[in-house]
Amino acid sequence: MYTVCVRDHFMIAHSFNGEVFGPAQRLHGATYVVDLEFRRPELDADGLVVDIGLATTMLAEVLGDLNYRNLDEEDPLRGRNTTTEFLAREVFDRVAQRIAAGQLGESARGITALRVTLHESHVAWGSYEGALPSSASA
Amino acid sequence: MYTVCVRDHFMIAHSFNGEVFGPAQRLHGATYVVDLEFRRPELDADGLVVDIGLATTMLAEVLGDLNYRNLDEEDPLRGRNTTTEFLAREVFDRVAQRIAAGQLGESARGITALRVTLHESHVAWGSYEGALPSSASA
Amino acid sequence: MYTVCVRDHFMIAHSFNGEVFGPAQRLHGATYVVDLEFRRPELDADGLVVDIGLATTMLAEVLGDLNYRNLDEEDPLRGRNTTTEFLAREVFDRVAQRIAAGQLGESARGITALRVTLHESHVAWGSYEGALPSSASA
Amino acid sequence: MYTVCVRDHFMIAHSFNGEVFGPAQRLHGATYVVDLEFRRPELDADGLVVDIGLATTMLAEVLGDLNYRNLDEEDPLRGRNTTTEFLAREVFDRVAQRIAAGQLGESARGITALRVTLHESHVAWGSYEGALPSSASA
Amino acid sequence: MYTVCVRDHFMIAHSFNGEVFGPAQRLHGATYVVDLEFRRPELDADGLVVDIGLATTMLAEVLGDLNYRNLDEEDPLRGRNTTTEFLAREVFDRVAQRIAAGQLGESARGITALRVTLHESHVAWGSYEGALPSSASA
Amino acid sequence: MYTVCVRDHFMIAHSFNGEVFGPAQRLHGATYVVDLEFRRPELDADGLVVDIGLATTMLAEVLGDLNYRNLDEEDPLRGRNTTTEFLAREVFDRVAQRIAAGQLGESARGITALRVTLHESHVAWGSYEGALPSSASA
Repeated sequence: MYTVCVRDHFMIAHSFNGEVFGPAQRLHGATYVVDLEFRRPELDADGLVVDIGLATTMLAEVLGDLNYRNLDEEDPLRGRNTTTEFLAREVFDRVAQRIAAGQLGESARGITALRVTLHESHVAWGSYEGALPSSASA
Repeated sequence: MYTVCVRDHFMIAHSFNGEVFGPAQRLHGATYVVDLEFRRPELDADGLVVDIGLATTMLAEVLGDLNYRNLDEEDPLRGRNTTTEFLAREVFDRVAQRIAAGQLGESARGITALRVTLHESHVAWGSYEGALPSSASA
Repeated sequence: MYTVCVRDHFMIAHSFNGEVFGPAQRLHGATYVVDLEFRRPELDADGLVVDIGLATTMLAEVLGDLNYRNLDEEDPLRGRNTTTEFLAREVFDRVAQRIAAGQLGESARGITALRVTLHESHVAWGSYEGALPSSASA
Repeated sequence: MYTVCVRDHFMIAHSFNGEVFGPAQRLHGATYVVDLEFRRPELDADGLVVDIGLATTMLAEVLGDLNYRNLDEEDPLRGRNTTTEFLAREVFDRVAQRIAAGQLGESARGITALRVTLHESHVAWGSYEGALPSSASA
Repeated sequence: MYTVCVRDHFMIAHSFNGEVFGPAQRLHGATYVVDLEFRRPELDADGLVVDIGLATTMLAEVLGDLNYRNLDEEDPLRGRNTTTEFLAREVFDRVAQRIAAGQLGESARGITALRVTLHESHVAWGSYEGALPSSASA
Repeated sequence: MYTVCVRDHFMIAHSFNGEVFGPAQRLHGATYVVDLEFRRPELDADGLVVDIGLATTMLAEVLGDLNYRNLDEEDPLRGRNTTTEFLAREVFDRVAQRIAAGQLGESARGITALRVTLHESHVAWGSYEGALPSSASA
């Protein structure tokens, strides 16, 4: 299995609901350094997992929709606990939609799985990984 | 699959038995920077893989039992080659026991697997990963 | 010159005032991974720059006063642009006050300078360094 | 599952063929920081995944055959797009051959899988992982 | 003293002249991860060392003139040993020229020194630091 | 000012004397990842701060004299508190002696200062920096 990963980041404010969160129930914020991994069993005709230029642009766009925002006020996140692991899944879904819509080109249909990791500090990170919904037909 | 990881470290002395270890047969030591990963297929009701506060405290306790010690003199490690990969398994087992005992709370019973990675330098690490013994009933 | 550094982090919300900040004028947030460096020309009688236990506790307290907060609402930061470099100076001043007050013990009066670095992402950091106000008499 | 990883690096020149590569069609180069992971379900009699001394030497030899070279002029890479992910597979195959030939000793026949990751910058990496061809008979 | 640092990278081919370079006399290449530090004794009116947006764009432009190239064929580097430390100075000079030309705005005239660090691998880096030629009049 | 840095590591056992050390009074150990920086105002005729091959070999030799040892039993460290900052100075002195003895070649006499940093974990490091004793005559 081949994997290619690109990294970017975004910076947000949010708060959490529930006693389990302790002081993190207050409005605070985070920098998330994001690793987006693309996986496929065989390389495409150019010897690539994915066009890194397109992948980098796509990740910047996905994170741009979240960057410099208070997630407590942003649809469709309003009312959710936007934990690191929850946001990893959110980024996963948005990337998967764009791949399905063809933003990474035809060859990207060979991508069978993604993993999204959000590093929230030097001592904690969360991730979500899964097969691509559309990969069965790829 | 969701994953959440917390990081801590411990510092120990030990020696190894067997010609394969060369100069590491002498009494020496290591800092191990430890990444403890928790995995589960679905988030709990709070949007969490695990209560990070509880997880961090638990990891500190597990490593506290090893920290600042000569492992050659510590039961039950006495007489074992406490290699990086062996210690990764040891930390895995101790964490798994505490989860089974409920230290991370009820919601943590949804955790299905763990990975423990010990970084021994900037150029080498070892890890152990496995399903949780109790996860079948979770 | 000897230096010892300890690392911790804090997570805050804030917004900036001024067109130069572009989208960062919106309420957002950041994780700051903080490196606190202590400098002195000679070690103390124990062979130390600083008691690392005390230094770590002190840094945790200083960052605890900022952690999980919206800096736009916190005195005395309200109304200021709490940029990374500004906050590095703020942490510097709070640490310097505590050293002057003796929180790190008598031997810490041999510390002549500090540097505080705040890493805001994998691609940007800011720092403030300076002599300790009280070091002339040390 | 146990994993042990060792790290080294190599520095090469190359160019790519195909419009998808944009400016990388020009002759340029890269440093690849290489993580070589060895996996096996049980430790050997010494408590090891692999003899790290032998593994480190082997990795240095494999990378030494690529280091300080223009890959456009090296057989058998000539005419191929030596992308990061392609090179990860190339290193994987060369390591697998050496394990099959016994370079890591008899105990290394317990290794069931490898992963090779090439970090090309602070924001991008590629990897190849797979079962060892010879592991079925191990 | 305040410092702000931004990070980017470039990837080049080159070769060295002189027996001291051993196998690095062959055409090879490198990824350089670049840290560009700006220093000044006081913050500007916005609480900044430098406008990070402008600084990031400027660094990308400076590195863009070197990226994806064979430095052996590029004026004015042709015939020089483009070692890591030499290139750190080259980037320093190009950045200093752009600051003097006003690319970072009027407030950037308060910047008194720069440091440029090029990381060539996980085990080696080189840097050049100096006062800005124009800082005396700032 | 130019700087070049090379990195290596060593792994030792030791214990500390004095109540300030708390549990670190017990026999334990550490991995020290070592950054050795060489500084000089001008490059040599080859465009170098130092011959990196010679520097790397020298650092490996210096650390080899400490590696895989119990420092409590090693002359001349016996009876000293071998703290991170103390060991940084020890490595500094041993490197300085070797440079003065010519191990890095004639051109290395242009080196005017060194810095040695020992990283003991992901959250703490110590360093010693100073002018080279022999640099006045260089």
